[in-house]
Amino acid sequence: MHFASDNWSGAHPRIAENLTHHASGFAPAYGTSDLDKAVEDRFSAIFEREVAVFFVATGTAANSLALASVAKAGGVSFCHADAHVNADEGGAPEFLTGATRLFGVEGDEGRINPKALEAAISRFEPASPHHGRAMAVTVTQATEVGTVYSLEELDAIATVAKARNLPLHMDGARFANALVALDVSPAEMTWKRGIDMLSFGGTKNGCWCAEAIVFFDPDMAADMPFIRKRSAQLFSKSRFISAQLEAYLDGDLWLDLARHSNAMADRLRAGLSQKSTTRLAWETTANEVFAVIETSSADRAREKGARFHPWQPPQGWLPLPEQNQTLIRLVTSFATTEEEVDQFIEVV
Amino acid sequence: MHFASDNWSGAHPRIAENLTHHASGFAPAYGTSDLDKAVEDRFSAIFEREVAVFFVATGTAANSLALASVAKAGGVSFCHADAHVNADEGGAPEFLTGATRLFGVEGDEGRINPKALEAAISRFEPASPHHGRAMAVTVTQATEVGTVYSLEELDAIATVAKARNLPLHMDGARFANALVALDVSPAEMTWKRGIDMLSFGGTKNGCWCAEAIVFFDPDMAADMPFIRKRSAQLFSKSRFISAQLEAYLDGDLWLDLARHSNAMADRLRAGLSQKSTTRLAWETTANEVFAVIETSSADRAREKGARFHPWQPPQGWLPLPEQNQTLIRLVTSFATTEEEVDQFIEVV
Amino acid sequence: MHFASDNWSGAHPRIAENLTHHASGFAPAYGTSDLDKAVEDRFSAIFEREVAVFFVATGTAANSLALASVAKAGGVSFCHADAHVNADEGGAPEFLTGATRLFGVEGDEGRINPKALEAAISRFEPASPHHGRAMAVTVTQATEVGTVYSLEELDAIATVAKARNLPLHMDGARFANALVALDVSPAEMTWKRGIDMLSFGGTKNGCWCAEAIVFFDPDMAADMPFIRKRSAQLFSKSRFISAQLEAYLDGDLWLDLARHSNAMADRLRAGLSQKSTTRLAWETTANEVFAVIETSSADRAREKGARFHPWQPPQGWLPLPEQNQTLIRLVTSFATTEEEVDQFIEVV
Amino acid sequence: MHFASDNWSGAHPRIAENLTHHASGFAPAYGTSDLDKAVEDRFSAIFEREVAVFFVATGTAANSLALASVAKAGGVSFCHADAHVNADEGGAPEFLTGATRLFGVEGDEGRINPKALEAAISRFEPASPHHGRAMAVTVTQATEVGTVYSLEELDAIATVAKARNLPLHMDGARFANALVALDVSPAEMTWKRGIDMLSFGGTKNGCWCAEAIVFFDPDMAADMPFIRKRSAQLFSKSRFISAQLEAYLDGDLWLDLARHSNAMADRLRAGLSQKSTTRLAWETTANEVFAVIETSSADRAREKGARFHPWQPPQGWLPLPEQNQTLIRLVTSFATTEEEVDQFIEVV
Repeated sequence: MHFASDNWSGAHPRIAENLTHHASGFAPAYGTSDLDKAVEDRFSAIFEREVAVFFVATGTAANSLALASVAKAGGVSFCHADAHVNADEGGAPEFLTGATRLFGVEGDEGRINPKALEAAISRFEPASPHHGRAMAVTVTQATEVGTVYSLEELDAIATVAKARNLPLHMDGARFANALVALDVSPAEMTWKRGIDMLSFGGTKNGCWCAEAIVFFDPDMAADMPFIRKRSAQLFSKSRFISAQLEAYLDGDLWLDLARHSNAMADRLRAGLSQKSTTRLAWETTANEVFAVIETSSADRAREKGARFHPWQPPQGWLPLPEQNQTLIRLVTSFATTEEEVDQFIEVV
Repeated sequence: MHFASDNWSGAHPRIAENLTHHASGFAPAYGTSDLDKAVEDRFSAIFEREVAVFFVATGTAANSLALASVAKAGGVSFCHADAHVNADEGGAPEFLTGATRLFGVEGDEGRINPKALEAAISRFEPASPHHGRAMAVTVTQATEVGTVYSLEELDAIATVAKARNLPLHMDGARFANALVALDVSPAEMTWKRGIDMLSFGGTKNGCWCAEAIVFFDPDMAADMPFIRKRSAQLFSKSRFISAQLEAYLDGDLWLDLARHSNAMADRLRAGLSQKSTTRLAWETTANEVFAVIETSSADRAREKGARFHPWQPPQGWLPLPEQNQTLIRLVTSFATTEEEVDQFIEVV
Repeated sequence: MHFASDNWSGAHPRIAENLTHHASGFAPAYGTSDLDKAVEDRFSAIFEREVAVFFVATGTAANSLALASVAKAGGVSFCHADAHVNADEGGAPEFLTGATRLFGVEGDEGRINPKALEAAISRFEPASPHHGRAMAVTVTQATEVGTVYSLEELDAIATVAKARNLPLHMDGARFANALVALDVSPAEMTWKRGIDMLSFGGTKNGCWCAEAIVFFDPDMAADMPFIRKRSAQLFSKSRFISAQLEAYLDGDLWLDLARHSNAMADRLRAGLSQKSTTRLAWETTANEVFAVIETSSADRAREKGARFHPWQPPQGWLPLPEQNQTLIRLVTSFATTEEEVDQFIEVV
Repeated sequence: MHFASDNWSGAHPRIAENLTHHASGFAPAYGTSDLDKAVEDRFSAIFEREVAVFFVATGTAANSLALASVAKAGGVSFCHADAHVNADEGGAPEFLTGATRLFGVEGDEGRINPKALEAAISRFEPASPHHGRAMAVTVTQATEVGTVYSLEELDAIATVAKARNLPLHMDGARFANALVALDVSPAEMTWKRGIDMLSFGGTKNGCWCAEAIVFFDPDMAADMPFIRKRSAQLFSKSRFISAQLEAYLDGDLWLDLARHSNAMADRLRAGLSQKSTTRLAWETTANEVFAVIETSSADRAREKGARFHPWQPPQGWLPLPEQNQTLIRLVTSFATTEEEVDQFIEVV
């Protein structure tokens, strides 16, 4: 019963196999092999336009270097206050952008509130050396708390950003989960909404290590080869990423894995909703479930082998857990089984 | 006939297999799983003392973050003028250490000359805000040009560094190749020589992506978890590195692969020495061979499928190639075959 | 009627004179002259213990480099949400500390609330590479909004910081104004309260350009010469700072100027309190006055030559100005005259 | 007999007086006062085109921030190997540009050799993430060793830079001394030669603290207000710089001071040339003189109160001082008197 995080899972067999398949033979290093190029082309096909793709080691690197590509002195990037980039990346976005700043914007259930975004940006308008200047907006899709921006919600964010000529970045550590939750195309959820740069995450959804920065306007990526190398994020045997992504994208495996993962979360949601002793903390649609359960149930589940993390109640969220209750986070992945879910629902 | 670089090879079958072996199941993320810990223990066993180990994405990251762990304002690190860290890492060592500086020291055949090192350091003595202060010494073993420091040569460098209380770093991108060339133990080539920090490279020698920073005094690594995360180098599915290293170190596979690689280089050296139209540029002992060959031979070899790079003659190196000659670099790897070598010798 | 800012004033005649007095002759550069040393000794005398003093160009530099002296990877410094360091220094604290972060803490009237501080720090406890680690606490004395921490309030902050072994910094851009408002000694307001590092500001209180970082434990300043030079903040003709400070500190001129400045603010406060159409926004004790006045009065005053800035109502502050009212900030300085004050009160 | 450095002198009386003159009254802060603007206009007049001017605290700041304005990831700036920016600025250029690199180019007598520059740049061509990319060229005028580039020599450097579209920076810490040595106009020595950015130094030539970055194309300076503030180099009471520069530039005082300074160096040169026991190390034309003198003479001069520094013989410079000889540097300034010079010549 593993619900601690989707990065506790390993790699999908087809991805592992393809890596082995490409283990022999020689190929040019540093992202210049035929396989690397084929995978890049695949990205262009998937996004229905020519894109520039840069592999990096971690989601943190993808987010940080995407912002680094638009960094400027005195720059401020706007994200949700609880976004991963702000809360859990150890200062990497600041460090790797040359000490620009992040500004946390409020919004319910992990989504930036467009009005709050507007108010936040206006604090830096007009640009001034004293308070700095707006530099970028970054949204997380799916969000840190399992919710997903609708296309209309993305449009509302984009409208605010574009009115100020601000580049718009999407942290897609769980991109596939959001995509299948909305049942839209990659293009519809990104550049058609005004997204300029995407952190495309494959690691959480069945890869070993496959993160890419996608630029929808390749001209915006002119400095990226230098920015990436300067940050020690250029792999020599780049094909070990490409091989993963080749299998990941082939035959829409990535979407199938995300559908499975979301379905397991649905099953969790359904099961937990039916119990009198648990309640869903808020409605989620991707592969994370947040539930208020009795602390004794949580303890019992852990004893029986369930793995999950408690979660800090978000600011302003109500009603708070009662004294004998706990807010917990449950994350499903491509590797989660129905049996695990059912067993968990039974023990809590 | 692939002699372009050892990073053109893929992964050794046993490493690829072990990665697949560990693909299923759940394990704690961010380097806290049992497998991660077992591999760390293995490092301690191999180095015959308790060490602290940090996986990172690239050799550039290993070098840069090792130096970051001893960084200080106005700091200057001393390396060979042609060292990878100085010539080929895109400014990452400077960037990831918070803008410290590198100072290139001369020395024949890629090895730092201890007297030149002493003279270089003395330019920064006593420490001053104006010219800065010495911060670290870094040696490359094996060097960029295929040579290997003897233990005595390492001692001479360490004597200079230790007299000034400077931490000593070893860039071991080709650590195994040097080790088997010298036929000494890992301990003898590192901390017994005074090495404080090692960039332990597995990628070039049969792994997909396996680079680690090893601290021989774990107390020196207290800040490393923060330094690594800040640089976006903390893998979530850390076991994909551990699985590679488990196989790599198991049964001394790593040493066997390096022995094979060096033997292939020996075979190249022997073959090229016997030809009247080629000469070895300088004596190498690891898995790189530098040769002066007729340009027409080089062209012919390329036509027949040989892959290799020309090499810029080092400063002061004599005699220079004649007009119709070229200096080339040939790199062997775990995947090089005797047939490839023999074929190459035949065609040049 | 100049109430825009205390940095709109020039230099006090005795300071200007002393600068001229020291204009001739030769003296060692970079802070090593007899005059420089005498001024440093004077600081030790004033603070009743041996201190280390570093002149820098701006208050922003003083704050930033004080924090740089305790910077570490993943570090977070806690300040009031509206503190100058957070709101008005263009990202310099982040940039000059190598991309550490600031965390804004709430608190009424510009003072950090100790409980809020504790809660804020606890978000980073225990230290983790993901969320980072606490690095320093910085208080502004007098605050950005004209208030002053009492000794007890400073003790409460220090208790929180010291319990976590966090260095405590004081931004003393208006240090003298706070000092005379509390009528305590420099020692009592700083190291006796647990302050480790002080940004000692002279510029706003009658100097041209005289900012110093004072370390109450000189051992903490070991890296400062390098940190300062690396940030291009080491003056060659350092005596031009020393000469200002010599006059500034001589015969307690600095305290007299601050007393005058505060007295002018008192006069403003008294005058504005008596008017039926204006009210003080909150109680201040240093040389800033915040008042809610009728917008038409503000306009009229400006027409008659009064210079002052509108002020953004702080979050949560009540009652807000009504529709035809404005919140304004009035700053007095050593150069403010009673006539100016009285004239202003008359015209609003 | 003060020949240690031109920054051992104080301020010229007219400059000190003007500072006092502007000490009273109120003026907008942060460089927006009428005086600030008048001085900026004066710069445009002097350089015969509209320029953008940014005051900073030190020459190191001017050099570092000028380079920061053209900084890019993986960037390398080319300077003379012994240039101040490379040898004596404590890593500030690297730090304040976000960790770009400097590359020292050889050249006789402190001047970059254009062929060596071309060779140095070509090491970074074509641009590559591995070795980085050329970012700027910076020349020092007058050089660190008292020599001055002729207009033709500047043209030769500019030709190399412009052919590669590289911005060209001039470190003019001793700008005035070079100008009067060449007897040309400011325009002729700068933008008419292709200089894009100038560090205009007033401090060494009679100001207290007056350094400015001049952009000959104001569009290139768009980010400078943010870059400067981020580096804590924006003065609040900016008029204390403007007041100095007003007097400095008024009636060509700056040129007169530099002429005096150079004339004193001429007198030194003439006097030392005539002595049998001393020789000029190399020919200089600005306000620095380098001489080989008997060590006993140097000691005797010091005993009699002469202040000067020994100098490290430049690489490759011949003939080296004999065993009983020393290479010394003598720097004159606006405050040097004929009597000092004559006395010095007598005692050595």
